Amino acid sequence: MENKIAELFARIEAGELSADEALNLIKKNEMIGDDYFIDRHRKQRLGFDEIIFGMSKTVDQIAKITDKYKQEKLDFICTGLDDRKIDILKKRYPEFEFIPKAGIMKNISSVPPKIKGKAAIITAGTSDAKVAHETGEILNCLGVNCEKFIDIGVAGIHRIFHFKKEIAESNVLIVIAGMEGALPTVIGGIFAQPVVAVPASVGYGVSAGGYSALLSMLSSCAGGITVVNIDNGFGAAMAAFRILKSGQVEK
Amino acid sequence: MENKIAELFARIEAGELSADEALNLIKKNEMIGDDYFIDRHRKQRLGFDEIIFGMSKTVDQIAKITDKYKQEKLDFICTGLDDRKIDILKKRYPEFEFIPKAGIMKNISSVPPKIKGKAAIITAGTSDAKVAHETGEILNCLGVNCEKFIDIGVAGIHRIFHFKKEIAESNVLIVIAGMEGALPTVIGGIFAQPVVAVPASVGYGVSAGGYSALLSMLSSCAGGITVVNIDNGFGAAMAAFRILKSGQVEK
Amino acid sequence: MENKIAELFARIEAGELSADEALNLIKKNEMIGDDYFIDRHRKQRLGFDEIIFGMSKTVDQIAKITDKYKQEKLDFICTGLDDRKIDILKKRYPEFEFIPKAGIMKNISSVPPKIKGKAAIITAGTSDAKVAHETGEILNCLGVNCEKFIDIGVAGIHRIFHFKKEIAESNVLIVIAGMEGALPTVIGGIFAQPVVAVPASVGYGVSAGGYSALLSMLSSCAGGITVVNIDNGFGAAMAAFRILKSGQVEK
Amino acid sequence: MENKIAELFARIEAGELSADEALNLIKKNEMIGDDYFIDRHRKQRLGFDEIIFGMSKTVDQIAKITDKYKQEKLDFICTGLDDRKIDILKKRYPEFEFIPKAGIMKNISSVPPKIKGKAAIITAGTSDAKVAHETGEILNCLGVNCEKFIDIGVAGIHRIFHFKKEIAESNVLIVIAGMEGALPTVIGGIFAQPVVAVPASVGYGVSAGGYSALLSMLSSCAGGITVVNIDNGFGAAMAAFRILKSGQVEK
Amino acid sequence: MENKIAELFARIEAGELSADEALNLIKKNEMIGDDYFIDRHRKQRLGFDEIIFGMSKTVDQIAKITDKYKQEKLDFICTGLDDRKIDILKKRYPEFEFIPKAGIMKNISSVPPKIKGKAAIITAGTSDAKVAHETGEILNCLGVNCEKFIDIGVAGIHRIFHFKKEIAESNVLIVIAGMEGALPTVIGGIFAQPVVAVPASVGYGVSAGGYSALLSMLSSCAGGITVVNIDNGFGAAMAAFRILKSGQVEK
Amino acid sequence: MENKIAELFARIEAGELSADEALNLIKKNEMIGDDYFIDRHRKQRLGFDEIIFGMSKTVDQIAKITDKYKQEKLDFICTGLDDRKIDILKKRYPEFEFIPKAGIMKNISSVPPKIKGKAAIITAGTSDAKVAHETGEILNCLGVNCEKFIDIGVAGIHRIFHFKKEIAESNVLIVIAGMEGALPTVIGGIFAQPVVAVPASVGYGVSAGGYSALLSMLSSCAGGITVVNIDNGFGAAMAAFRILKSGQVEK
Amino acid sequence: MENKIAELFARIEAGELSADEALNLIKKNEMIGDDYFIDRHRKQRLGFDEIIFGMSKTVDQIAKITDKYKQEKLDFICTGLDDRKIDILKKRYPEFEFIPKAGIMKNISSVPPKIKGKAAIITAGTSDAKVAHETGEILNCLGVNCEKFIDIGVAGIHRIFHFKKEIAESNVLIVIAGMEGALPTVIGGIFAQPVVAVPASVGYGVSAGGYSALLSMLSSCAGGITVVNIDNGFGAAMAAFRILKSGQVEK
Amino acid sequence: MENKIAELFARIEAGELSADEALNLIKKNEMIGDDYFIDRHRKQRLGFDEIIFGMSKTVDQIAKITDKYKQEKLDFICTGLDDRKIDILKKRYPEFEFIPKAGIMKNISSVPPKIKGKAAIITAGTSDAKVAHETGEILNCLGVNCEKFIDIGVAGIHRIFHFKKEIAESNVLIVIAGMEGALPTVIGGIFAQPVVAVPASVGYGVSAGGYSALLSMLSSCAGGITVVNIDNGFGAAMAAFRILKSGQVEK
Repeated sequence: MENKIAELFARIEAGELSADEALNLIKKNEMIGDDYFIDRHRKQRLGFDEIIFGMSKTVDQIAKITDKYKQEKLDFICTGLDDRKIDILKKRYPEFEFIPKAGIMKNISSVPPKIKGKAAIITAGTSDAKVAHETGEILNCLGVNCEKFIDIGVAGIHRIFHFKKEIAESNVLIVIAGMEGALPTVIGGIFAQPVVAVPASVGYGVSAGGYSALLSMLSSCAGGITVVNIDNGFGAAMAAFRILKSGQVEK
Repeated sequence: MENKIAELFARIEAGELSADEALNLIKKNEMIGDDYFIDRHRKQRLGFDEIIFGMSKTVDQIAKITDKYKQEKLDFICTGLDDRKIDILKKRYPEFEFIPKAGIMKNISSVPPKIKGKAAIITAGTSDAKVAHETGEILNCLGVNCEKFIDIGVAGIHRIFHFKKEIAESNVLIVIAGMEGALPTVIGGIFAQPVVAVPASVGYGVSAGGYSALLSMLSSCAGGITVVNIDNGFGAAMAAFRILKSGQVEK
Repeated sequence: MENKIAELFARIEAGELSADEALNLIKKNEMIGDDYFIDRHRKQRLGFDEIIFGMSKTVDQIAKITDKYKQEKLDFICTGLDDRKIDILKKRYPEFEFIPKAGIMKNISSVPPKIKGKAAIITAGTSDAKVAHETGEILNCLGVNCEKFIDIGVAGIHRIFHFKKEIAESNVLIVIAGMEGALPTVIGGIFAQPVVAVPASVGYGVSAGGYSALLSMLSSCAGGITVVNIDNGFGAAMAAFRILKSGQVEK
Repeated sequence: MENKIAELFARIEAGELSADEALNLIKKNEMIGDDYFIDRHRKQRLGFDEIIFGMSKTVDQIAKITDKYKQEKLDFICTGLDDRKIDILKKRYPEFEFIPKAGIMKNISSVPPKIKGKAAIITAGTSDAKVAHETGEILNCLGVNCEKFIDIGVAGIHRIFHFKKEIAESNVLIVIAGMEGALPTVIGGIFAQPVVAVPASVGYGVSAGGYSALLSMLSSCAGGITVVNIDNGFGAAMAAFRILKSGQVEK
Repeated sequence: MENKIAELFARIEAGELSADEALNLIKKNEMIGDDYFIDRHRKQRLGFDEIIFGMSKTVDQIAKITDKYKQEKLDFICTGLDDRKIDILKKRYPEFEFIPKAGIMKNISSVPPKIKGKAAIITAGTSDAKVAHETGEILNCLGVNCEKFIDIGVAGIHRIFHFKKEIAESNVLIVIAGMEGALPTVIGGIFAQPVVAVPASVGYGVSAGGYSALLSMLSSCAGGITVVNIDNGFGAAMAAFRILKSGQVEK
Repeated sequence: MENKIAELFARIEAGELSADEALNLIKKNEMIGDDYFIDRHRKQRLGFDEIIFGMSKTVDQIAKITDKYKQEKLDFICTGLDDRKIDILKKRYPEFEFIPKAGIMKNISSVPPKIKGKAAIITAGTSDAKVAHETGEILNCLGVNCEKFIDIGVAGIHRIFHFKKEIAESNVLIVIAGMEGALPTVIGGIFAQPVVAVPASVGYGVSAGGYSALLSMLSSCAGGITVVNIDNGFGAAMAAFRILKSGQVEK
Repeated sequence: MENKIAELFARIEAGELSADEALNLIKKNEMIGDDYFIDRHRKQRLGFDEIIFGMSKTVDQIAKITDKYKQEKLDFICTGLDDRKIDILKKRYPEFEFIPKAGIMKNISSVPPKIKGKAAIITAGTSDAKVAHETGEILNCLGVNCEKFIDIGVAGIHRIFHFKKEIAESNVLIVIAGMEGALPTVIGGIFAQPVVAVPASVGYGVSAGGYSALLSMLSSCAGGITVVNIDNGFGAAMAAFRILKSGQVEK
Repeated sequence: MENKIAELFARIEAGELSADEALNLIKKNEMIGDDYFIDRHRKQRLGFDEIIFGMSKTVDQIAKITDKYKQEKLDFICTGLDDRKIDILKKRYPEFEFIPKAGIMKNISSVPPKIKGKAAIITAGTSDAKVAHETGEILNCLGVNCEKFIDIGVAGIHRIFHFKKEIAESNVLIVIAGMEGALPTVIGGIFAQPVVAVPASVGYGVSAGGYSALLSMLSSCAGGITVVNIDNGFGAAMAAFRILKSGQVEK
């Protein structure tokens, strides 16, 4: 917003705008619907289009937002959808793309600018695959190239070494694990890249909900591992995006 | 006790004992002090001498019990002693043996019967050493042969492979780790022996108190790992003792 | 894997293999499907066939893995299945065996090598029976002989004594209890064998989810009790298997 | 208070009192100090004298209250005192009685009316003794006869049977245990009397602070066990007092 | 069991029984079904008939147990049944009595011996009524006279005073409350009888599951309140039964 | 009640009433149904009509209470209703008003006295809207004027500044947020009015259930923010009502 | 800050300021020290002077800040000081005022503008007094008139009624309680004013740290109670200040 | 290690080495002390020298490790030291450098290779400074340029805008906050760079230990924020190091 203010300062100084007009300009430019406020400067500020978090919204709320985007011909991606919501939305919006195994509905017309570098998405087990698919989809939307390595967890530690070369060539490592969540620690001890650890809500008893994986990752004895919320594939993708974009900045 | 009852049944039947005499015999044989009850059948029942848990007892309570054992010339080992308690007890009982780095005071005159097999005590870091030393001392008292492998944790996973041969020759593996507690999972994925995992109260933030290590070990994706309480070197030693003794039973 | 590497070292030294061929050999030999990675060395490393954890996998994922095993004529056991999943899978794989009260689907053609010794599976109540049945099934697949003692919990402590002789003849005791989880402590105070305690998610209020039983078992005043995750019948069976196999090793 | 109001209604009706005088009478009769409010009707309402909870009060606050009681020649008992507070208070009030092993200071001149019946105080270990001593002292002040059975916990379950007869003759059983807290469950399964379970803050790791014992007691599979706060010897004594007094009521 | 053993001692001594016969007698007398163990001495030991906890049992398990009781013409009460289970069981056992609002199925032919004294069941709100009804039903089965006072919680504290006389005439007070659980504290400050507090799983957010009520009751500043598990109407009834029976013992 | 007692004192003194009549008057005036106790003095004491908390009541219990209110022609509002309950109640009471997006059923005939001042209801996201709607409805029933600002959370902090003027003109700010719950802190740092923060149960992983938002709000570094239970729109409305009414009192 | 921006807009428009000058003005006006940033607009924005939270700062950090305030002759109040810090600071700043029982150091030269209305500070016990004193001191600094009612908790509920008139005349009620934290619920059921509940870290076992009081207050069945962090006397004072100031606004 | 193995494969193939010699080479090259295992390949693997975590080690253990490094003339940095440990170590190693405000002892002779890019270290308050200083020291040792912005937290949100330009020029943002931990969310909503959030153990009540800040950061509604353990300045520095190094890789 500061950029905007600086620009408005300049325009008022130049006599192009009154103070009141300046304030109104801000308000109008970022219209508000009934229950929703479109953040039109996010792309400019943070570099990515609207990503709607569908998990805690009702189908009605999602539809209202989607209608707006559709009407304004804006790209979007909606995450965190369960099968029931996808079924309803599919009927309503047959023109959108749906990826059920990733819990995603999207409508992207423009090709995102290609981000340099590559992300590796590594999971400990088969059960973590949904988070991996969500992460991969979002990375694609953000213009990030990525590769997946599924089911190479710690119980059979030799599986990691199979892909050592491929992993070593990635610029950021997203590591997803449930249960005891040991995989990011092992990966972080072998590889020097940034590691974004994602606890998965896989398991039962004390593992239920992903808490033991979360604590394990935060406690990791391998230095420099960072963690996002449980099942937060979106957050991991965004973190990788931030990291790769940062690497392109002239330093 | 059932054995005893069976024996008493037999003796009453044989007319050697009246019913009343039988009941009194039980009571007398297991005398009680003021605040303490000596379990004289434990060795017969479970195969080990008295091990006094000193952590939650006052020095006065420990001394009262110790005096009794001393007077009756009974062997004992007292665990969970901090430096302050050791200092006081050392002055009072110069004839006893003290191992401060293991938090132990003991008075053992008899050589325990040798248990077949060997235990490996493996720790993730230097900070876990105290628990390892306690475990080792108790195993010695129980007649169990053991070897220690300190500071070979997961952050540098190649360190495990250095000792692969030695570990593979042990019959039971006691694995101690704090922080994210990943070591038992990795060990359990490589080796086929029984693994007794001990969470250590090493770390800060979410690792503080050993809870993340505990949860990680209980959640382990490597099948068949069992866990004892945090810092419970005594429990791990007893479990190894139970396992090794069980292996000697004719099957 | 080290064994393999040692063997490959030897073969390269012998000129049978180039370094590159050695690396490729490892990769090929452990093929990967789309979402799943078959660990072909597990049996050699740890001594047991594939056990698939079905609880956190979708029916589709289970089916994909199962198809692979079926096609390759490999034995497997799949655990943690609820009634809904069993119904679907039963229709798809009428040739497999289903044990709903244990939550298990399996396809085992070979007879496992008999493990020496015997395991006792003891439960506190009727409600813990499902975990006991799962444990028993897996032990059978692993070649372990076992006997069940259901509903002999602490509230009527005399029930334990009825089976004292049978329990005393087992080489490892798996004790399953929900609610206050006191049974392993009592068992561990009477019997000298290894005790593997399994908290059951039986109860309501503070017992809900099995946490009070878990804490109770970890806190046990009876030395040498070890614990696995809540409802983890698989883990308990594997631990017993490790213990009994360890007892057969020449010491 | 209602009793009082009823009486005042009657007196106003009888013309002995104006409405305003009635309200003032209530206020005066229950004078307030600076930081403390003496509850002069408690004995009449609940049947016991003032018991001051000293744990969360500063020595200064305790002294201010004590001075008041001393000056008015009122009996009191002050609980929850650590060694430091006892040392300071002992110097200031040499005329009072101090029981350090129970954490108690008291000044009781009158003999309490004897309550019918007897309470048994049973502890699992030596470490629980302090709570037992506090409980015993308060019961004495309340006129309740009691007997202590220390260190007869579950790990050696036969110890309970030694005192079966004595325990069976008590009218209420106060059972104190730390660690896994199994003793009240076992006691409750054998004996038919009211059981008041007291978790003790004995133990380390998951037992620390008495939480596993608390959960275990609340989860007990033995019907009708009731629980008080951790280390709450005062509460247990009061509960026993309420129970025994209730038994004396004509029914 | 000790009684039994004492009796057997005597009979062996008298030559009526051999030692072996004595052991067999115990086993036979307490037959075991497949998944269930009937505790035939409970009534003698603790004074009440079988109460089956139906919540964590499957309908099949309940039916198996019920069939046994039916066939042996034994009285029973089964608690913790939800509407689905009641519907199924009602069809199968039309001859039994069902009380859905209490979650209970029962088959009681004999009139229980009348226990002297009276219990008051007090709830804070309408939502706690189910627990109150369960408690009341069980008390009836145990021969205890009781009266209910529903929805007189702390938010309108004058409601308690309406029933002061009736409550004061009861010998034990069972107080059920969810949310902040303050009612037992207020009741315990006004009345001198034993108070058994039952946290109810009423509420949302931090009250969800009854935990804040539980902690509140355990923390109560009113001395001598005892607590049972959340929603544990059965436990509260049993505690009241123990208390009232204890009051009848000759002291 | 005290007011009442004072009045009754006066009337007895005046000879208009006997003491007994006074006591009966209290009882009669606050009739009790079977499971429910109408608090007829609440409006007089606290200034608002009956608000029934429908979440933890069964439809039957709600209907019984509603029938009573209908029959006595009393206003009420019933909150916390999910879609299933609303469907059933709508059929039964077509004459009542239902607001599903707020979870509310109501029957209000009288216009509440207008409270001076205005409340702002501010939410961080679209997902928090249900709580906002409940809050708004209750405020209307209480005669409080309010305005809603939906979806202006911290991730795009400039959105707050758009409504700075409108927010600044409100007398009390109700701020609803899930996830990390940062919005009340930011609001409280900018505006000087009373802030009532409502954690919303929006989010997954560590945010699930609203706990991270709750802790965040209680920990706020912005002084003077107060917090109500998770999703407690009712409580927030009542707090605002108390605050605005207090402002009208002559000081 | 917006006010400032609006003003700057106007001044730029008026030609008094260039855009660059405007930006620099903001930065300069809010100078920064080494480790500390004085918020010079807080009084203007929120209406109160600097209150330094001393609990988590070292004595050195406090001294650095204090020196700055002293040198600039600015008023301040520093809270959360323990006895050790107060001793050190007293020697260094003999000219400041210290209130150890409230944990406060302050240097206030100007008389704050009188806020209309009155706050009542009510505590459940003697042990909560420190929080009450802190609250009172801060209210004084903020120009708020207040009265304290100490030790009138729920265990003797009649004590509240003694002060009914005085409490009823206050405009906002700050209610401090540890243990089971029931007092705010009872107060909130009797009085119609805003209630700010403060959990106190008084108690042991499950009450330790103030958590049971916190949950109890958040769960309160009395509508419209709001809560601040445990022991947060500062927050309660600030909330009362916000409320009373809001009441003075022209509506 | 794989690199090493690949190299050894090649050398064996080339006939330079026998298979046995290859295995021994690995073991020797990574000598082990008594309680400590130097990881000589870490720098090669991960790019940084040894960083010793001093918090959970005794002074004796630290000294033993330090002696080894000193004797071998190796650089090291030891973190997590409290004042007591620093005092003892200072006397023993006067030649080392100590930074008490960062809890660090170090001995670095070589200048680290300069890493491109810059890190910003931002804290919410003065109390978070220690973590910031630790982070800064480690970054320096790793060759990373960094700048600190202390005490610019959310309660006065305008303070962030003062440094907008400087922050915008950094390539990675380390944001440290205790209490409600809202700062990373706000920063992440304004700036597009990678954000590494560090919860600080600042606060009391529910903030104590840094848990509310941790949960808040993991729950952040601003996409792509990653989190490390509470007070984990070391982890944050390592994460920034990984990110900046990754940015230099040719992509």
